Amino acid sequence: MKKFNRIAIVGVGLIGGSLGLAIKKNKIAKKVVGICRRKVSLKAAVKSGACDIVTLNYKKGLKGADFVIIATPVGRIVNIAKKVIKHVKSNVILTDVGSTKEIIVNRIEKIVPSHVKFVGSHPMAGSEKSGVKFAQHDLFKDSVCIVTKSKKTNKKALNTVKKFWKTIGTTSKVLSPANHDRYISFVSHLPHVAAIALTVAAESGSLEYASTGFRDTTRIASSDPLLWQDIFMTNRKSIIKSISKYKKILREIEISIKGKNKKFLRSILKKSKDIRDRLE
Amino acid sequence: MKKFNRIAIVGVGLIGGSLGLAIKKNKIAKKVVGICRRKVSLKAAVKSGACDIVTLNYKKGLKGADFVIIATPVGRIVNIAKKVIKHVKSNVILTDVGSTKEIIVNRIEKIVPSHVKFVGSHPMAGSEKSGVKFAQHDLFKDSVCIVTKSKKTNKKALNTVKKFWKTIGTTSKVLSPANHDRYISFVSHLPHVAAIALTVAAESGSLEYASTGFRDTTRIASSDPLLWQDIFMTNRKSIIKSISKYKKILREIEISIKGKNKKFLRSILKKSKDIRDRLE
Repeated sequence: MKKFNRIAIVGVGLIGGSLGLAIKKNKIAKKVVGICRRKVSLKAAVKSGACDIVTLNYKKGLKGADFVIIATPVGRIVNIAKKVIKHVKSNVILTDVGSTKEIIVNRIEKIVPSHVKFVGSHPMAGSEKSGVKFAQHDLFKDSVCIVTKSKKTNKKALNTVKKFWKTIGTTSKVLSPANHDRYISFVSHLPHVAAIALTVAAESGSLEYASTGFRDTTRIASSDPLLWQDIFMTNRKSIIKSISKYKKILREIEISIKGKNKKFLRSILKKSKDIRDRLE
Repeated sequence: MKKFNRIAIVGVGLIGGSLGLAIKKNKIAKKVVGICRRKVSLKAAVKSGACDIVTLNYKKGLKGADFVIIATPVGRIVNIAKKVIKHVKSNVILTDVGSTKEIIVNRIEKIVPSHVKFVGSHPMAGSEKSGVKFAQHDLFKDSVCIVTKSKKTNKKALNTVKKFWKTIGTTSKVLSPANHDRYISFVSHLPHVAAIALTVAAESGSLEYASTGFRDTTRIASSDPLLWQDIFMTNRKSIIKSISKYKKILREIEISIKGKNKKFLRSILKKSKDIRDRLE
């Protein structure tokens, strides 16, 4: 893809840091600038080698940037977008990496001036770890990145954002913000709820017998609580719907175990295996 | 440990096959005999190298065995024990590898003659894969094996069974059959129910966006449906209790998302992270 002059990343944590490393590895920009909130993160960002320049100053960090990525936790993205748009040049492309999209995209589209081209992104990569020290240049390799398209999305900017994600190794797919939130509630937000509830449900005496099954099923429960509080708060409608569907299925399994309904159990176990096997 | 003369394994699948390989690797028996149900499994068992002798014939397979392991799916263990006890010599030690224990141990203890020393086992290792072709000599390494102790358990046999599991790499822990079933419902059976329900709940359109989080959380849903139908049917009481507790926690999360109760969400996310982090 055409090389950017300067890419600015706001928030240099696991995702922002990995983006910096991937951009440098794939030579997508002449310079990568990291914008941090605190001095301590600034030092870690410098040490990671993910950025050529690291600063606490938005004006300085955004000067000359032609592509800006907001890589902070979901709950701060909109406020940061407000700050970013004050300092960017005309025709800059702005994206974010938030795990929920309808609220974020709607709110940013409302405040963004016409000379800033905003396109929402959600790279479906990451880990239960957080912090730039876990950043990897290949974090996004072979993953899916959802890029959102709304009525207000600029088509040229959408294509550039898609190309950007493709160049660092993801398969980019386009969804409306609402469809993003609906689908992702089933494959990410509901599994998160399920994993939390499993760890909290487990009697303390039982945990010493936890094997690979429990560990895998609950791995994501180790994720950052604040990040997930915000994800839950910004996709409430879809998550409530998916929990409701989930509880209905649990109830069916419960009833069939109570009623010794082997036929139903075998059928749902088989259905579930078929679905899961197809993902491999 | 003192070497066995002849160990017979009934059922040479993933677990039975891995046991054979581990026994041979650790030189715990002069001979390992595999007893299979069907000719086709017999061929696969021979090919795996897990047994010195493989047979379809119980009488022949059990002749001279001083240690017998029933490594079939849960639903067949009791009936196989009935067949095994007809052909074994005095003072043979018999164990099984079933994932539920109270029903299995109670039923076998009722039929076992005094010259056969039965001790229940549950090695907490395995995989969503099944079949001897996936057998590995180190499947049990660094895992936990629960050995059950009831009023009828012979202490000397219990120690021998514990030593056996230790020799092939597990940490063996002793629990009553009832406590086994209670604890394991939380760390294995409930997670299984949760994983199945997650795959079935997911809207079909959402699955193409499934990332590592969904894959890990639902990995165990690929397990053998018949095996799990039997596990559910033989630990009904504890599984129903754990599903009920799980649903209560889900309801709390659901209510707090509906009511925008950030404080509760943050607190349960933090609690869950603390529990999960301690497992690492």
